[in-house]
This record gives sequence, C-alpha cells and structure tokens, in this order.
Amino acid sequence: MKETILRSGIDRRTLLTTLALLPALSAPPLSVSALAQTASSGPLPSWNNGSAKQAILDFVRDTTDRASPKFVPPEERIATFDQDGTLWVEQPIYSQMVYCLDRVPVLVAQEPALKDVEPFKTVLSGNREAIAGLSMRDLEKIVLATLAGITTDEFEAEGKKWLSSAKDPRWKRPYTELVYQPMLEVMTYLRANGFKTYIVTGFGQDFVRLYSQQVYGIPPEQVVGSALAVKYDYDKDGKPVLISEPRLMLYDSAAGKPEGIHLMIGRRPNASFGNSTGDQQMLEYTGAGEGARLSMLVLHDDGIREYAYGPAQGLPYTKIGSFTPALYAEARKKNWTIISMKNDWKNIFSFQ
Amino acid sequence: MKETILRSGIDRRTLLTTLALLPALSAPPLSVSALAQTASSGPLPSWNNGSAKQAILDFVRDTTDRASPKFVPPEERIATFDQDGTLWVEQPIYSQMVYCLDRVPVLVAQEPALKDVEPFKTVLSGNREAIAGLSMRDLEKIVLATLAGITTDEFEAEGKKWLSSAKDPRWKRPYTELVYQPMLEVMTYLRANGFKTYIVTGFGQDFVRLYSQQVYGIPPEQVVGSALAVKYDYDKDGKPVLISEPRLMLYDSAAGKPEGIHLMIGRRPNASFGNSTGDQQMLEYTGAGEGARLSMLVLHDDGIREYAYGPAQGLPYTKIGSFTPALYAEARKKNWTIISMKNDWKNIFSFQ
Repeated sequence: MKETILRSGIDRRTLLTTLALLPALSAPPLSVSALAQTASSGPLPSWNNGSAKQAILDFVRDTTDRASPKFVPPEERIATFDQDGTLWVEQPIYSQMVYCLDRVPVLVAQEPALKDVEPFKTVLSGNREAIAGLSMRDLEKIVLATLAGITTDEFEAEGKKWLSSAKDPRWKRPYTELVYQPMLEVMTYLRANGFKTYIVTGFGQDFVRLYSQQVYGIPPEQVVGSALAVKYDYDKDGKPVLISEPRLMLYDSAAGKPEGIHLMIGRRPNASFGNSTGDQQMLEYTGAGEGARLSMLVLHDDGIREYAYGPAQGLPYTKIGSFTPALYAEARKKNWTIISMKNDWKNIFSFQ
Repeated sequence: MKETILRSGIDRRTLLTTLALLPALSAPPLSVSALAQTASSGPLPSWNNGSAKQAILDFVRDTTDRASPKFVPPEERIATFDQDGTLWVEQPIYSQMVYCLDRVPVLVAQEPALKDVEPFKTVLSGNREAIAGLSMRDLEKIVLATLAGITTDEFEAEGKKWLSSAKDPRWKRPYTELVYQPMLEVMTYLRANGFKTYIVTGFGQDFVRLYSQQVYGIPPEQVVGSALAVKYDYDKDGKPVLISEPRLMLYDSAAGKPEGIHLMIGRRPNASFGNSTGDQQMLEYTGAGEGARLSMLVLHDDGIREYAYGPAQGLPYTKIGSFTPALYAEARKKNWTIISMKNDWKNIFSFQ
C-alpha cells in the first residue's frame, strides 16, 4: 500500500504533515540532490566530470531551487528523450526495423502473393546487402504492411515474444539491454528532482510502450511516438478490439516531434535530449521557452565501445541517425550541449 | 522541496525506509481508504448511500487490496472521465461551443467577407432561436474556423481570457464553477487510491487543458480530447510556433474515445465515467478488460437542481448529451452503474 499512499493527493498531505514533525527530516530542509548523492557516490556516476555533466547538474539546480529565478514548479517539470541513438543503440539498423523485417515471412505466409512483390521479395531473399540497400520508401512499405491489420492485443503479444527472444548480433544480448547507462542515470536523476520523463520517438510508440516501464522506468502513457491510426471494432464474439490501419496518424520525427509533444503532453518540455537531425525541432521548441532550458545532443564518437558516425566532426556518414555538420553548427549557435560518448561517458552499457 | 521528494524514485525509497522505522506508520499497515475517511466524514460526502456509491467503494476495495484476486498494481490504475455532462454542465449548449460562437465576431473582423456567409451570418444576427437551430455540420464549420489558423500560444491567451470573464446565464458564474461536486470527490478518492485520472472529452483537448489542473486537479498531459492538427513553423522573428490547422486529427467521441485512449494513454482504463451515447464505446472498452471494472453513466434526471434530459426513462429529448433508451438497456445488460443525479447526489455544485 505504500506506493499507493505516495501517489495520493490527500495522503501526500498527511505524510508531509507527519514528516514535518520529524526533526531529522524537517530541519534543515531536505535537498533532493543531496539525498541522491548520499544514496550513491553522486547523481551521475557513469559520467566523467566535464561541461556535459555540469550542464545537467546546473539545470537541475536552477529549476529546483525555490530561490532561483529559474525555478520551475514540480508539476510543470517535463523532460523528453528521443530513443534510438539517444537512449539505446540504433546501429546498424533500428531494432523496430529488425522486428518488422522478421515479421515479413509471417505476413507472406498469410498473403502468399507477396512473395514475388518488392520489397518483400528482397527481404525474403535474406541477401543482407540487398536488404541494407532498400530505400526509405521500401522500408516504410514494410513497416506499414507488417504492423497494420492486427489488433492491439495481437501486436502486444507478438512484440513481447520477439523482444524476449531476438538478440543484437554484435553484443549477443536482447535489444532491451543495449541501453546507455549514463542516460538511465540522467532519467533517474531528473525524476528524483520532480521531472516527468517522456520518450519522444520517431519509431512506433506502441512498440516502445511494450518495454518502456521495464527498461526506462517510464510508463506507457509517457511514450510519444509515431502511430498508426487504430479503428475500434468488434471481434467475432462481439468483444471490442482496436485494429491498426495502414495509415500513419502521427509521424513523430523532425517537425513531428514538437507536434506530437503538443498533441500528447500539451506543454513545452524544460529539457530535451536527442542525437540526430530528426531531433532538431524538438530541441528548438524546448529551447524557445522561457527560463532554464536544457537541450542536449549525443554524439556517437566512440567507434570502439559503440559506433562512430556523424557525419559531423569528420565522423563516418551512415543512413541511420545522421548528426550533420549543420546540426553541429546549430547546436553551437544555440548553446545546446553536445555529449561526447567517448569523453563524457565512463561506461556505456551496464554490462560492460 | 517536499513535493519533489515525493515524486522521486530514489527518494521515495529513502522515505519508505524512513517510514518503515516509524511504528505509528508501519504497524498496522496503512490503509489509504482508512486515511481518506479519517480526513473527512468519508470518501464521498456528497453522495447518498445507495448502489452507485457502493459500486465505487467496492471497486476501490477490490482493486487496491493486495489480498483481492482483482488487485491492480498501483502503476496500472487508470480511470477516464468524459467531461461535458459527466463532470460539468453541458446544457443548454457546450461551453466550448459558446467560446467558438463568441469568437465569430473576432473572426469576421479579420475576414470581413464572412459576414454574409452562413453559418457566420446567423451567428452575427444574435437570433438565439436561429443559432439554436444550426445543424451539427454548421457548428463544426464554426469550430474549425474559430479554432484554426492561430498559434497554440495565442489560443492559450485567448481561451484563458474568455474563461476568466464568460459566465453561464443561469447560474451567473464562470463555466469552470459548474462542476459536479460528487464527481470531484470520485476523482479525489480514486487518486487517493493510486489511480491516474484522465479526462477523455469529445470537445477540444487544448481547451480543457487550459483549466484541467485548476478545476479537476488533472494536469494537461492527462487530458485526451478532439484535436486539430498543428503545424510546426517559425514566426517572423524565427521563433518556433505551433499553428492549428483546419483539420481534425482526432475526433474523440464514440469509437474515437477508445481510439484516443489507445493513442494517448496506451492502455485500457479500469474505470470509466460518461453520460451519453458518445461514451458508450469507452465504457464497452473499459468493461471488456479482465478483473474489476467500473463503468458508470450519469443520468440527468434532476430538472430542479440542474437539467432533466434523456430521452431514456421518459426524460425530455435534447440534441446535446443524449442518453437514449438503447444506451439505458445496454447499461442494464452489461451491469454498468447508472448514477441518478436526483437520488444519488446530496449536492450537485459546491456553491449550492
């Protein structure tokens, strides 16, 4: 029942009253960051000291200190995180894309005529080079075909099954373990300081919602992402179902990120984290608000511990998760903080 | 800082540890409903004893008692509420519709040609009977024309100004005071028991978000409703803005309610509250889940203290908020609970 008590309006007050009677807790006033630091060696143990770590600490200090002119009331504290490339590995290919590719044989079993139709034919061929060469338009076709036409319950069952068995070929681990430990620490630290943390992903929100609580401590309702339209209907037994349609209702990338944030959250974030051109508008929108704002970009400059790609800063170009020189210049101009994976992060994964 | 502490993951644990050391708090285990009852004369003081009140108490007991087979973990507890006619007055006309009608002169000042075009011409005439006779299609035209084409910041400023000055003609009070006290108590009681409360409205979510925190204690991000598409753009100074477009992205009524719930919350509610045919699918969807489910419908059968309308149970028919005999029969068949405003509610408004 204790969780229940802490979630309660009425009982929160009761608790606060009780706490106020305890000298050890009430005087001197408790500082959350002090508490967090006591609980471990500091709030961001996987971060090296430097401007990126300091930017996070400064932002939290400014927004949570009631004496600060940049103080933000707890109920208004919002932080948004891109997922792929910001919270977890996106190379050599987005994990939800792997899921969709893995579903092509299931789809073809249901609709055999597709086996001779592109791009499904190429996927079935198993030719990795040809698959890697598929255009964005082909990939979109695959995404729509493999995700649409099933009930949300079926999708949940299928997706969870895949997540529990599929493994990344490099690390031989489930995709849900390829999470950046320093970013988990940022999320925990922000939540410990009253921020509501959201994922704002260009990929499918229904997919991320399957594991967001377990992996990030973020409940499904705090995941914003691209979404197919769903249609309310009844199954053969008259039971209500929601069926996904082959129509993108929200494409939550680039300008779609602030649009999706407005639709689903309804207010401007105080802090945003991204890693590619698809996150630029979210960071702009965040930064255009008043008071303390934190806009951060992860730069993948560690080819040994993870992957090195840009093409900013002379890093190799990849189709996925581009961090262009133009984005780099924009970040410098707008005082966004760039996180160097190589220099700012002591550890990248919890398993290393 | 105390609110911050209670919102924190890390510090919540610290607090729980501290609480566990306090005999008065740790033994016997705290019951939230017991606490809520101590804080007042009972959890639902404006409700008369009867099957409706009992259904709420039973539902909360079943879902929060860890020993109950119907126990729901706190982080999964979701309750959704229709707004118009369920949480506040919707007669003789939806308050957001009044807002849109009040904006027609502003619109015509900007686009003078509209003054001779229907339905704007009728609205400008001030002829109440003719305005009341406008078709749903005409009203939709007015809604789109008056809400689209402005930035979300402009909408917020305009809407708040209107809300602070407009008054309901019968009670001579701001619309935001015409809230049903018994329903506020249900929301508070559910939140005190770990439920996240959401508004799921057929009207515009951006409008409801302007006052949801103040009126219902519900933050903007927990308001789901009909939504115009917004477009990310830049103003003349290069500042990012979101501009509403004359295109309905989500029509959050009837089948649109479970569709909107899936889009924005991503899980099935445990409890739903409505009052009209537009809420039927939300209640069906809620009821189709496993375990304890609460589906309730407010019946407006109190023509003295509020308005009497159905046409269920021989009550008068109105265009707005229809509770049809078919919905009444469906509620009986599915064991949904009908709330009689006349018999179940001691008080309707806090000001009475």
